[in-house]
Amino acid sequence: MKRIDIGLVGYGVVGNGVARILEEKKELLSKKSGVEINLKKVFTRNWNKSFPYPLPESKKAYSLDEILQDDDISIVVELTGGIDFPYKLISEAVEKGKHVVTANKALLAERGKEIFLKAEQKDIRIGYEAAVAGGIPIIRALREGLIANDIIKIYGILNGTTNYILTSMYKQGKDFKTALREAQELGYAEADPTLDINGTDAAHKITILASLSYGGFLDFSQVYVEGIESIHPLDIELGKDLGYVLKLLAIAKGHNGEVEVRVHPTFIPEDNPLAKVDGVFNAVMVEGDAVGESMFYGKGAGSLPTASAVISDIVDISKSIAEGVGRGIEITSMNWEHKDLTLTRVPDFYTRYYLRFTVPDVTGILAKVAAVFARFNISIAAVIQKEKVVSMYESKEKVVPLVILTHTASENNIQKAIKEIEQQGITVEKTVIIRVEDEEK
Amino acid sequence: MKRIDIGLVGYGVVGNGVARILEEKKELLSKKSGVEINLKKVFTRNWNKSFPYPLPESKKAYSLDEILQDDDISIVVELTGGIDFPYKLISEAVEKGKHVVTANKALLAERGKEIFLKAEQKDIRIGYEAAVAGGIPIIRALREGLIANDIIKIYGILNGTTNYILTSMYKQGKDFKTALREAQELGYAEADPTLDINGTDAAHKITILASLSYGGFLDFSQVYVEGIESIHPLDIELGKDLGYVLKLLAIAKGHNGEVEVRVHPTFIPEDNPLAKVDGVFNAVMVEGDAVGESMFYGKGAGSLPTASAVISDIVDISKSIAEGVGRGIEITSMNWEHKDLTLTRVPDFYTRYYLRFTVPDVTGILAKVAAVFARFNISIAAVIQKEKVVSMYESKEKVVPLVILTHTASENNIQKAIKEIEQQGITVEKTVIIRVEDEEK
Ligand SMILES: NC(=O)c1ccc[n+]([C@@H]2O[C@H](COP(=O)([O-])OP(=O)(O)OC[C@H]3O[C@@H](n4cnc5c(N)ncnc54)[C@H](OP(=O)(O)O)[C@@H]3O)[C@@H](O)[C@H]2O)c1
Ligand SMILES: NC(=O)c1ccc[n+]([C@@H]2O[C@H](COP(=O)([O-])OP(=O)(O)OC[C@H]3O[C@@H](n4cnc5c(N)ncnc54)[C@H](OP(=O)(O)O)[C@@H]3O)[C@@H](O)[C@H]2O)c1
Repeated sequence: MKRIDIGLVGYGVVGNGVARILEEKKELLSKKSGVEINLKKVFTRNWNKSFPYPLPESKKAYSLDEILQDDDISIVVELTGGIDFPYKLISEAVEKGKHVVTANKALLAERGKEIFLKAEQKDIRIGYEAAVAGGIPIIRALREGLIANDIIKIYGILNGTTNYILTSMYKQGKDFKTALREAQELGYAEADPTLDINGTDAAHKITILASLSYGGFLDFSQVYVEGIESIHPLDIELGKDLGYVLKLLAIAKGHNGEVEVRVHPTFIPEDNPLAKVDGVFNAVMVEGDAVGESMFYGKGAGSLPTASAVISDIVDISKSIAEGVGRGIEITSMNWEHKDLTLTRVPDFYTRYYLRFTVPDVTGILAKVAAVFARFNISIAAVIQKEKVVSMYESKEKVVPLVILTHTASENNIQKAIKEIEQQGITVEKTVIIRVEDEEK
Repeated sequence: MKRIDIGLVGYGVVGNGVARILEEKKELLSKKSGVEINLKKVFTRNWNKSFPYPLPESKKAYSLDEILQDDDISIVVELTGGIDFPYKLISEAVEKGKHVVTANKALLAERGKEIFLKAEQKDIRIGYEAAVAGGIPIIRALREGLIANDIIKIYGILNGTTNYILTSMYKQGKDFKTALREAQELGYAEADPTLDINGTDAAHKITILASLSYGGFLDFSQVYVEGIESIHPLDIELGKDLGYVLKLLAIAKGHNGEVEVRVHPTFIPEDNPLAKVDGVFNAVMVEGDAVGESMFYGKGAGSLPTASAVISDIVDISKSIAEGVGRGIEITSMNWEHKDLTLTRVPDFYTRYYLRFTVPDVTGILAKVAAVFARFNISIAAVIQKEKVVSMYESKEKVVPLVILTHTASENNIQKAIKEIEQQGITVEKTVIIRVEDEEK
């Protein structure tokens, strides 16, 4: 049986899980795969602390060179985090002809193009199953299982922290701050949860899925991202009345040679399978022209679920090394169109909208709002006006929420209409805009 | 770009879908995969009818030899059905050194061992993604994505016809016959739905998933199978009161070196993600020791969803041919333990039970039943007794249903206890036994 030597860099949450499984399941993995996978060396910047899965001295590396300069090591597993250090590390590994496995979505979303192009030149494989949706094998599904499909749309819940917070806001009526604090206390949100709650993490992941689905790289800095920081419990309640659940959705759709990529709080119908994905679970819905809708659901993070994905790549690449093949065996590369993807401009988004205007409690307001909508070609699907919630507003004067659910409209027209409504002084507070993913029947 | 020639045998529902996608998406497939996949010849036994995707004369074969004797054809796609003919066809293809793709679950469940062993000898790949759960890439998930996991349990809804029927019984309160007839009228059940409704089709599929998960072949004739033919709407109603939804579940669990495989109507908690899988959709839940619970959901049948899976195998195998590798590149073979699996005997099943006794409406009955249960170590979790449903019974005397939900018990004890209860004359009709998949908290 061929032996493949692995070098691991970064020994934190995921690294410990990977080492544990590689060691404890060595026999299972070689029975299943027919190759011997040998964790040869692990490098991390500080060995002077305790680890959930302590390593013997013989496996510890005290410099990166012990991995990069070791010709036996053919796969480098990058599990550090951040961007600059892993970028340099991976570039050097590729340069040295070593294959790479990484769970680093930030790196791949922001600098994936440079890495993948270099890997193409050098016939190096880059495994990144763990970078999106943790233990769920969504990368394989897109790369292999669903290859016969044009991907119409791919969307999902890709961040467990925000989903945990939104679930407890929805189910227990908590406000954002309370829900966040509790998530932190329970270990479902990090001490600095910024990249989770502002949507960046989900955006990294959908960028990777969009690249693979549509076959090219895209400019991450142009992806539309909105977080959940300013979600008010009132909107979650009002959405419920409309039959909607609020989720932080990451969405990619292809049309007319462009790709629309966006991350924002989104209302989805309560009978959409994603509406039932609660807490820290992730789920990805893929709509393919042949397969229809399919959904992939599971743990999106955590030491062992993420390690499960890392190891699937390690085994896959080990098999290709053992068989003497390189990137050529990979069924679909991320760059299969061999071009950069064009992102749809934000004003060109078309979707449905939930709009909450805060208006004085007098007659004739709806008529005024409707008149502006008509001018911008926005058609109204439903209106809710509720007395009882007035007390939730901070304004002094008597105001009420006026909620309008639109049919599909252009972002451009919506923004213009709201601007005009606000300029006419119809509203007394900033208008709340929540996009709605709900196909018109 | 390398060209791989394909021969297709059987031109029905799935065959037409496969040809359509291979032809209409030739360019997409070669951009994504880097190989040219060429549908060279199609054989079916009768070309004298109309087809949803008509083929040019040049692609029609009028004898199997036009495919089997053509040295250019390196992959034979079997889409006929039944067992004897495809067994012979696949054996000949393997003998000739041709790789095989099939959607035939009956064949693989009942004679997979012979086929896979022959394929091993000849270094031939057999693709069977389409044989289980149609368009859902569950085979790849088990073979590759979840390789790091010991599979604790794999279970799911693997037959769309029965799920459609049970969904309309649950949601619209229909009886079995009406629901079946409507499913037939709508094309969701075949004219002869026997293998669907008696559970055989689901059993074929779970047998394949069990083999792959636990690494060996098993004796299909010993798999426990129960269909939905005799499900009474009353039990669906009473289950609802307990918070359960009735599904035809196919279940495989590994323990103590044995594999428990069974298909039967099963109550699951309404908050289990599978409870929400309605109509013709399929879903598979996999519990792995590293990844936890993950679920795969989508269309389990139909021309294009199934073709999507068939094509994923065609591309995969084409890539391996183009790269000059054989079975060795397959990440996990179905037979990775290289031994036959031992099936758990039926009396050794342990699960929870819903039991509906039909008893006279007099006091003291529950005490008698409970006494027998105690003797067989069966502990009771809940009891329901309902007056109002009496009218649904055909018996003349005044009888009531006595429903008992047990904690985990052995099948052996349950059967013995029921036998004793019936022998004591406590009941007036045959007892209804429905197994319950609901972990004790
Ligand atoms: N945690 C998850 O559930 C999860 C899920 C999916 C993907 N990921 C991704 O996986 C990667 C690792 O995540 P993690 O949660 O395991 O992070 P972590 O617990 O913070 O571990 C990171 C490890 O890398 C080490 N490290 C950081 N910078 C280094 C450097 N410059 N040189 C050497 N070692 C360095 C850290 O050392 P110190 O401890 O000494 O700082 C630590 O051992 C990240 O890209 C993350 O986005 C994580
Ligand atoms: N339909 C689905 O959604 C689905 C999903 C998953 C898996 N599958 C599996 O896929 C396979 C094909 O299913 P299907 O629905 O496409 O069946 P189908 O519509 O009945 O098509 C079968 C085709 O094979 C031909 N055929 C049958 N026996 C033959 C023989 N001895 N020699 C030559 N041709 C023969 C039939 O010809 P005639 O029409 O002339 O009889 C027909 O063209 C089956 O194994 C099935 O279990 C089907």
